[in-house]
Amino acid sequence: MTVHGRPRRTARRVRITGCGIRPGLLNPRPPEEPMKSVQLYDTTLRDGTQGEGFQLSMLDKLRIAQRLDAFGVDYIEGGWPGSNPKDIEFFQEAKKLDLAHAKLAAFGSTRRAGMAVGDDPQVRLLLEAETPVVTIFGKSWDLHVTEVLRTTAGENQAMIRDTVRHLKTHGREVVYDAEHFFDGYKASPEHALATLKAAAEGGADVLVLCDTNGGTLPSEVMQICRAVTEAIPGTPFGIHTHNDCELAVANAIAAVKAGGVQVQGTINGYGERTGNCNLTSVIPILQLKMGIEVVPELEQLKSLSYFVDDVSNNPHFARAPFVGRTAFAHKGGMHVNAVQKLARSYEHIEPGAVGNTQQILVSELSGQMNILLKAEKLGLGLEKGSPEAKSVLARVKDLEHEGYSFEAAGGSLELLIRKETASYEKPFELKEFHTSYRLYRDGHDPVCEATVKVHVGDEAEYTVAEGRGVVNALDKALRKALKPFYPEIAEVSLLDYKVRIIDGHDATAAKTRVLVVSGDGKSTWGTVGVSENIIEASWIAIVDSLDLFLQRHRAKLPQTETV
Amino acid sequence: MTVHGRPRRTARRVRITGCGIRPGLLNPRPPEEPMKSVQLYDTTLRDGTQGEGFQLSMLDKLRIAQRLDAFGVDYIEGGWPGSNPKDIEFFQEAKKLDLAHAKLAAFGSTRRAGMAVGDDPQVRLLLEAETPVVTIFGKSWDLHVTEVLRTTAGENQAMIRDTVRHLKTHGREVVYDAEHFFDGYKASPEHALATLKAAAEGGADVLVLCDTNGGTLPSEVMQICRAVTEAIPGTPFGIHTHNDCELAVANAIAAVKAGGVQVQGTINGYGERTGNCNLTSVIPILQLKMGIEVVPELEQLKSLSYFVDDVSNNPHFARAPFVGRTAFAHKGGMHVNAVQKLARSYEHIEPGAVGNTQQILVSELSGQMNILLKAEKLGLGLEKGSPEAKSVLARVKDLEHEGYSFEAAGGSLELLIRKETASYEKPFELKEFHTSYRLYRDGHDPVCEATVKVHVGDEAEYTVAEGRGVVNALDKALRKALKPFYPEIAEVSLLDYKVRIIDGHDATAAKTRVLVVSGDGKSTWGTVGVSENIIEASWIAIVDSLDLFLQRHRAKLPQTETV
Repeated sequence: MTVHGRPRRTARRVRITGCGIRPGLLNPRPPEEPMKSVQLYDTTLRDGTQGEGFQLSMLDKLRIAQRLDAFGVDYIEGGWPGSNPKDIEFFQEAKKLDLAHAKLAAFGSTRRAGMAVGDDPQVRLLLEAETPVVTIFGKSWDLHVTEVLRTTAGENQAMIRDTVRHLKTHGREVVYDAEHFFDGYKASPEHALATLKAAAEGGADVLVLCDTNGGTLPSEVMQICRAVTEAIPGTPFGIHTHNDCELAVANAIAAVKAGGVQVQGTINGYGERTGNCNLTSVIPILQLKMGIEVVPELEQLKSLSYFVDDVSNNPHFARAPFVGRTAFAHKGGMHVNAVQKLARSYEHIEPGAVGNTQQILVSELSGQMNILLKAEKLGLGLEKGSPEAKSVLARVKDLEHEGYSFEAAGGSLELLIRKETASYEKPFELKEFHTSYRLYRDGHDPVCEATVKVHVGDEAEYTVAEGRGVVNALDKALRKALKPFYPEIAEVSLLDYKVRIIDGHDATAAKTRVLVVSGDGKSTWGTVGVSENIIEASWIAIVDSLDLFLQRHRAKLPQTETV
Repeated sequence: MTVHGRPRRTARRVRITGCGIRPGLLNPRPPEEPMKSVQLYDTTLRDGTQGEGFQLSMLDKLRIAQRLDAFGVDYIEGGWPGSNPKDIEFFQEAKKLDLAHAKLAAFGSTRRAGMAVGDDPQVRLLLEAETPVVTIFGKSWDLHVTEVLRTTAGENQAMIRDTVRHLKTHGREVVYDAEHFFDGYKASPEHALATLKAAAEGGADVLVLCDTNGGTLPSEVMQICRAVTEAIPGTPFGIHTHNDCELAVANAIAAVKAGGVQVQGTINGYGERTGNCNLTSVIPILQLKMGIEVVPELEQLKSLSYFVDDVSNNPHFARAPFVGRTAFAHKGGMHVNAVQKLARSYEHIEPGAVGNTQQILVSELSGQMNILLKAEKLGLGLEKGSPEAKSVLARVKDLEHEGYSFEAAGGSLELLIRKETASYEKPFELKEFHTSYRLYRDGHDPVCEATVKVHVGDEAEYTVAEGRGVVNALDKALRKALKPFYPEIAEVSLLDYKVRIIDGHDATAAKTRVLVVSGDGKSTWGTVGVSENIIEASWIAIVDSLDLFLQRHRAKLPQTETV
């Protein structure tokens, strides 16, 4: 079964009628497009945004929705109109999206206790979103029915049944999210199953079992899912997990093994508390490990992951499975050696399958091989055994001995290689700099000042700048000096700055290592400086950063992500 | 079965003889200390350091080792002497550690192919580390035996058998790590089992099955572990997983369910590529979900997690299961309401069980509890509910809001408590300081100068000093000013110095946090300073460090290790 090269859906698929939907099929499909055995349901835009540090504007949501659709996700839960008025607007705007495949879902709650479903304003909002799919959640745990909803089991089940039926009558595909299902089942299996049955009776297209608290173990998930399929064989089930035990992905996989047809989650695992099920990990597991094809171009996975991070202004998690920068990075000398001999021996999948690359980290544990590979990846071609290669290697070893570390400072390493190989031209010559910091304890603001003398060709620049700190002042003074010659410098900003003391236990010989991460809005690169004092170390890292930028700019190379 | 209040081990336990060890027992124990059913094996210091961005100095490793021991970890894998010369030094220094419970393990490889084990220099280094435990890894996958080792299956098994036997003869407890075991088993079960049998024949105390590539699924782990226990019932097995599929924790749990007695992993999941099995998640799952007690004070979990982050100069992952800042933070309006009504309804465990707190409802009582416990440990007796206690709590909250983190800066916290409780006397008053740094590129040495104005009682001191850097100059100028009044200051040295930018993505509002570790030859303590600029932040941390030293000195207290 392949999903490659499937035809674009026509616009009329945006409205799915309720008629003719057979149990077991989520929606009718043209014969040339076989049903996937597992549907991907993305709630990045809704459940994801309930997490801290993950906020999206209207434009962000629309952009993400388009990327999700292009990637092959089946459902996009766009928001909760009854809870967030901005989401009402989103669903209006979203109608203009030309989605090729994914179906938009509006999320909300069952009708209120004691209220007719037709009178419930929140349910009305769900219909007014005019999405093909509506997802509602209901209480499965008797504890919540009595203590939180303050109603009876019977009324709760009526709430579920009525709301599902109402939405089906209005032509919606209905996804029923059984909140706290696993805790509820453990507390009272009969009660939990009764709530599911109510949804099934209402006509729900799928029953999604939610591990809302994130505390269930995979073996329990497997067992309870099986109990559900036995008790309610007529309606397919799905899974919605949370990562409170670091088991969200494992729980989703367990549910699929038990027969689940839908996995709900978010890109990069964003979400409340510890996050939702991380689709970025589930998707490649399904496709590469379990032989269940879910997306047409899995190689777009890393790009999608990075996109969602960037749009939400979050850093990329370097150690993220599959898509992380270091997911396939080898450091230990032993591993690196073996990798050369047998690429697959230390990689569980081929990195390119998810759009990632093998990264070689240069560190005290590795040798010449790493440098050559790094140069090759940068397109700088060092000949093995050549004078240049030996020179680079010797320089790297010396610097590492002095305390340099190039692991997160691939930019400095690249610059070093360029200095030995390509036609490197020094863009500026530093003559002198000075920093001054005066702190008064009697109310005056502290004063941080830096002066810089640089030469560019025959011309000299002598500048002064103030800053929030001496390194900031120095950085500003340097840029001030270079700007007349290299206006493009304005694109570069300092994004991160880390300092470590090396061999701090002997303070006399202690050195300071500064790592600077810079970016130009399109990519980032790391540079490093080491010195006995922090200002000179910072200076070295900052100068390297601008130097590298200018070298690539001159060579009209794209600024690339350098590890 | 409880592990609370277990007695300190006597020094003679450092050497474990091979005699009398029954299969199934890892080492003899006094009758009052029942065997835990699962042993925790921590490789933060070895496998953890193979990951990017996780480098530790000697002092860092020793501090972490002490914390791990205090927490209740059973094995601490300290390093790989044959690969990293610094690790040889670590094992020498580590002998001075007074470990209450944990056993140090030296890690290395089987003997080389075709070489007698007694002649192998790397094996000799393992013995010279003089640890009670030695862990060696061997090849389980026939592909690696032929393509990487370039030897025969028979020789490979001899390498394993010989090396284990050799180490047992020398009185070591031997942990055998079966590298790539699951891939190897899938490729050829007979071959993989044969390598395990060789280790068992050599006398290995435990056979640890390693999912080195991190690509195995939990169901496969469970199945293969069961096959191992069937084929080799005489020797217990353990598990070592990696997170390449985001299943490291799930795989470890599966192995324990299948009868595994040892879990190897790292704190916070540090490690190569996507990291090792995250013990910070496994431990609470074992103890709170599976009823397997593994540590005496699980409430110390978050503190340990933060400590390792701070010592390695890494940020805390806010969404980390159990210990993350947002692990129990509720944002969604619905959840907050329900939490109010029924605290456990939206939390899978009680946050305090792992030393964490519920974010929305930070009750005055629970926040205060942590401070009280800390004060008690320091012998400073804060009365619960007293004005002093409330004052300390309020101050800590304010400072944390500004970016302070006291996890690895217990010295600053102690000083804060002293300021509110004991008869704290301010040893000196800072009036003003100034730093200047001038760098010449034409051969002159750089000039780093600092001036300091302090008052001690009625007397003023105005000093100037030069240093290798401005912080060093400032430190020297301050000591120069204080020495006439407090000659004991001469005993204190600055051992380590770490800097982080907090909220670095918005550079305008970024703050700098400096962590300083000081020592007087007998103990070490950490202090912290936060400011928008690095010099003031360093100043705060340095002043706190000297202040605390003087307070204890005045009270004639022994300087204690404050974590």
